[in-house]
Amino acid sequence: MSRTTSNVNPGYKRPKNTIKKTEEYVDGILSGDKTLLSQAITVIESAKPEYRKLGQKILDNCLPHSGNSIRIGITGVPGVGKSTFIEALGNLVLENGNRLAVLTIDPSSSRSKGSILGDKTRMQTLSNAENAYIRPSPTSGTLGGVTQKTRETLLLCEAAGFNTIFIETVGVGQSETAAHSMVDFFLLLMLAGAGDELQGIKRGIIEMADLIAINKADETNIEAANKARSEFKNALSLFPLPESGWDPPVVTCSALTGMGIEEIWGKINAYMELTKKNGYFDRHRADQAVWWMYQTIHRQLKEVFYEKPGIKKRLSSFENDVKEGKISSFKAANKLLDLFNLKK
Amino acid sequence: MSRTTSNVNPGYKRPKNTIKKTEEYVDGILSGDKTLLSQAITVIESAKPEYRKLGQKILDNCLPHSGNSIRIGITGVPGVGKSTFIEALGNLVLENGNRLAVLTIDPSSSRSKGSILGDKTRMQTLSNAENAYIRPSPTSGTLGGVTQKTRETLLLCEAAGFNTIFIETVGVGQSETAAHSMVDFFLLLMLAGAGDELQGIKRGIIEMADLIAINKADETNIEAANKARSEFKNALSLFPLPESGWDPPVVTCSALTGMGIEEIWGKINAYMELTKKNGYFDRHRADQAVWWMYQTIHRQLKEVFYEKPGIKKRLSSFENDVKEGKISSFKAANKLLDLFNLKK
Repeated sequence: MSRTTSNVNPGYKRPKNTIKKTEEYVDGILSGDKTLLSQAITVIESAKPEYRKLGQKILDNCLPHSGNSIRIGITGVPGVGKSTFIEALGNLVLENGNRLAVLTIDPSSSRSKGSILGDKTRMQTLSNAENAYIRPSPTSGTLGGVTQKTRETLLLCEAAGFNTIFIETVGVGQSETAAHSMVDFFLLLMLAGAGDELQGIKRGIIEMADLIAINKADETNIEAANKARSEFKNALSLFPLPESGWDPPVVTCSALTGMGIEEIWGKINAYMELTKKNGYFDRHRADQAVWWMYQTIHRQLKEVFYEKPGIKKRLSSFENDVKEGKISSFKAANKLLDLFNLKK
Repeated sequence: MSRTTSNVNPGYKRPKNTIKKTEEYVDGILSGDKTLLSQAITVIESAKPEYRKLGQKILDNCLPHSGNSIRIGITGVPGVGKSTFIEALGNLVLENGNRLAVLTIDPSSSRSKGSILGDKTRMQTLSNAENAYIRPSPTSGTLGGVTQKTRETLLLCEAAGFNTIFIETVGVGQSETAAHSMVDFFLLLMLAGAGDELQGIKRGIIEMADLIAINKADETNIEAANKARSEFKNALSLFPLPESGWDPPVVTCSALTGMGIEEIWGKINAYMELTKKNGYFDRHRADQAVWWMYQTIHRQLKEVFYEKPGIKKRLSSFENDVKEGKISSFKAANKLLDLFNLKK
């Protein structure tokens, strides 16, 4: 037997590589292939260096084909009926001949494959619909990392021909700010009764809303929901008109019975019409893209800084000293910057 | 004539240096000397490198003597009567035996000495009061720079024995977020009539408020002010209770007649009592100090990044390409980070 290495052996067959070429992913995405779309998103979500360049290439090639969708953020605390609402609104979106992608931002999720099933279970009709695509939150990473992946995923979904995108967030933290920075329209789901149910909603989210929907306005709850609607309507009227020129409506709905869902879809379309006409839609998207450029730069600067071993080691002791007033915030910052060796 | 250099000539007298030693400033500040306090603040505000170290030293020495004050943010759009209000509340503060410092954050100001006079004119009683100290906004720098100076000035004022600090902002931008991050209590001045007057207030500021005061509730305006009060009260009741456990009140007042000013001072003191008792006061201050440490690090990282010539030159062309969708936000960011040579 002759001593040959596999590379020079003409009969040798390399094992089938699971990483495809850029074009395969891109062609698949552009033809609307959900399997290849999923695989490309997995590439983008991967932390492995060898995937980084590939992910970037896929994104570059898809970018010219992205943008043709309406992007809707949907948030609300657990228990508000988000999944049922997304099913109801999503089915209406599909009935109107659209293609819908539902993405989730949930940095707290340490979801395994089991809970991707979970997502599919909680949105059963949508997950079986040909023109719908459901993708749960990336399973690891910082908030900044997770939201960047979601924004990239959004662009790929658009390139794959999904013309309506829902970005779902859990309504209790900074995910909403990130979602807000990538959607055209922000929808807040609430329940009647402004008491305990509201405690989970972060102050500030209400002012982001382009529409507030009081959900579960069914059976014995209708009166309370109507009362909540007029209370919120009054409250919002005290805020200045948003830059979009759109006066955020407050509506009641029942995702369970379907009441109000068509009205909400009508409002969303009216918003798109208004803001496309008055120029806000395009201006806002351009501003968001620039915001993401700066956001990415700042996030990576911070990552490099805080990952530096000398800084990583001493950070928490500086933090404690600052907390206890032993050292000023500025001196601590400067000492850490000295360690980074970057000070002007 | 022998050839000697000045350093070895025993008869040589250095010209009187206008920069004093650290101890002179510190002793002056700790004894409550307003002239030396002003000079120290000027050192801190200076962009000159030779002042940097001195400023840091003064701050370090004053830090152990700072913190003993209540810090109150006051904001409202132009025309709401801020100066008159600050005069009225400030005089009450002084009558109660306190020492008051009034600082301003206004990054848009390019104030010269002329307008320091302007500040003194608009707050005439306070500027003549022995126990009050008025310091306008630093006259140059980015928002981040200006607010850092204001925070440092605040610490020096506390070391100088001012036990009540007002931080005034102009109510139309990001200054409020910065002010909010350095005060214990945030007061929003409004006018009756939720229409045009409100347009200048940024969405988001209302939710920061620990108290909303409807000003100019005098003469023919009383009824409208009362109506506005109950509208705002209803609106705020829809928001979740802030972390402080304090339910933000809405009151009417007239800075001109003095109506309501005592009530407001009472509310502020009630807030301090509540939050000192429930632990929020100290926790919040410690969190703020840590926030400022990170804020300072991030600001300086960004400054170094954006000042780098290669980046400065190409930034706006990248920004345009991103705006026009020619390049993705992420690719642009990575290309700029490559120029900085810091990428992981």
